Amino acid sequence: MNDLESNLKKAQGEVDKTIKSLLPTGKGIEKKLFDAIQYSILSSGKRLRPFLVMQSSKLFDVDEKNALRVASAIEMIHAYSLVHDDLPSMDNDSLRRGLPTTHKKYNEATAILAGDSLLTLSFEILSDSLTHNDPKIRCDLINELAEASGARGMVAGQMMDLEAENKKLSIGVITRIQRLKTGALIAFSCNSGAILGRAEKKQKFALQGYAHDIGLAYQIRDDLLDVTSTTKKLGKKTNKDKKAGKKNFVSILGKDRAKKQLEFLANQAIKHLESFDDKANMLREVARFIVERNK
Amino acid sequence: MNDLESNLKKAQGEVDKTIKSLLPTGKGIEKKLFDAIQYSILSSGKRLRPFLVMQSSKLFDVDEKNALRVASAIEMIHAYSLVHDDLPSMDNDSLRRGLPTTHKKYNEATAILAGDSLLTLSFEILSDSLTHNDPKIRCDLINELAEASGARGMVAGQMMDLEAENKKLSIGVITRIQRLKTGALIAFSCNSGAILGRAEKKQKFALQGYAHDIGLAYQIRDDLLDVTSTTKKLGKKTNKDKKAGKKNFVSILGKDRAKKQLEFLANQAIKHLESFDDKANMLREVARFIVERNK
Repeated sequence: MNDLESNLKKAQGEVDKTIKSLLPTGKGIEKKLFDAIQYSILSSGKRLRPFLVMQSSKLFDVDEKNALRVASAIEMIHAYSLVHDDLPSMDNDSLRRGLPTTHKKYNEATAILAGDSLLTLSFEILSDSLTHNDPKIRCDLINELAEASGARGMVAGQMMDLEAENKKLSIGVITRIQRLKTGALIAFSCNSGAILGRAEKKQKFALQGYAHDIGLAYQIRDDLLDVTSTTKKLGKKTNKDKKAGKKNFVSILGKDRAKKQLEFLANQAIKHLESFDDKANMLREVARFIVERNK
Repeated sequence: MNDLESNLKKAQGEVDKTIKSLLPTGKGIEKKLFDAIQYSILSSGKRLRPFLVMQSSKLFDVDEKNALRVASAIEMIHAYSLVHDDLPSMDNDSLRRGLPTTHKKYNEATAILAGDSLLTLSFEILSDSLTHNDPKIRCDLINELAEASGARGMVAGQMMDLEAENKKLSIGVITRIQRLKTGALIAFSCNSGAILGRAEKKQKFALQGYAHDIGLAYQIRDDLLDVTSTTKKLGKKTNKDKKAGKKNFVSILGKDRAKKQLEFLANQAIKHLESFDDKANMLREVARFIVERNK
């Protein structure tokens, strides 16, 4: 296990512990909801976004307790988006991370409500004084997360993605879909450390550039894996875009150019971090990991 | 038109103007999302919750501009909950306020995303400094709204309601469902004025008691209208609970006892307001209106 892997594993354990402590529990007739929430977020997942929160927070010596709460809140937003995107009326996926999707395990109504719950809980956590003692910082986190994940961010990206089926799209439009659907939340993950740590503008811009590049690289790698990997390795269906008649980076650029673009983006991401010292090493490793990941 | 009606109409106009100014717009391929959001919240509605925000704010001389933003945010939560509750996998309603429900007008995926957008936008608005210049107050609003509307509040109520079908329920369980599903958001609407106006504990308790009573009264009136009114008058299907095999206040108490309980609650609600002067007159009128309303 290399340095990044052991750090990722350690962070994953801590984040999962924090998430678990924040989820609602109870034995009432609504218990199925609590089970579905837990299933939707605790079953598995790389916890990449939480790791970005933890590592960007480290750059500015943010209290780890605060960073863990923000990391948990962002993972809740990510988990809710997966649960809703997997629904039959959206991407209609029955498999996620090698397990039945939430609506397959429970039912559609419960999956919708579990998603709504995770989305709402995320903001409840961020607004709590335990997340940061300065309410202005809490409001900044909430405002930016809401913008990144709402109808001008992630949700718009999902709508565009649904509308994109069987349409001829330019690389510009596909890039915009990616930027909104997955890029905005990755960018906020990196930015949250800067908000928590009251970073200077210059540092914020550097992290923004980094996040922009790894976000795009992540999506290109996803598109490559979609055509080169198997359901067994990936834990989700492959060749999805082709079957859905969706254009993506690989179908437009071709595999070779997509791979070159991926490496270019990873190198550029690392370059954005040059003003930071060794504390940014894990973020540098993440950029390399994204190029090489197999799932 | 009596005093309450004209005040309700005036508030409705102002709230709708504020909501409209806060909704996302654009001409990209995600335009359908923006249309569905607008349709879901601006088509119609009594705007009862916003009115409670405006009137409870008035008690503490809150700036109307601030109250209007909070009123809009709460109506967005209410609208999102209706859009999701109407979905085929939930209550499967095709008619709402006399118009096709959002998933009927657009499609299921768009309705789910419109709901997610409204939910997220609500917190974005509350976190903005335009809502109140004190970030502590903004965080308090967000924290209490999230609690009232999430998995320990409204969403839990909806889950319980779905699980309640064809089950024998006690009046206690039905009251808990009501308290979570509709009561929590009504209570928060009244409480938000107290938060904005930094009310004293005693005043908060009085408003809480009032909100609790009108919330329950509202539901009992709803259950009465479900069996005594028509689809044409109500703008939504009637006899819904009976068809779905759901017990409600009227099916358990019977019409006469339900009506008596309704009047008792309205009087008790008004009694809670006795420490307030004439500024609370509209809230008193609301309690009477709930007993008499025909839709």
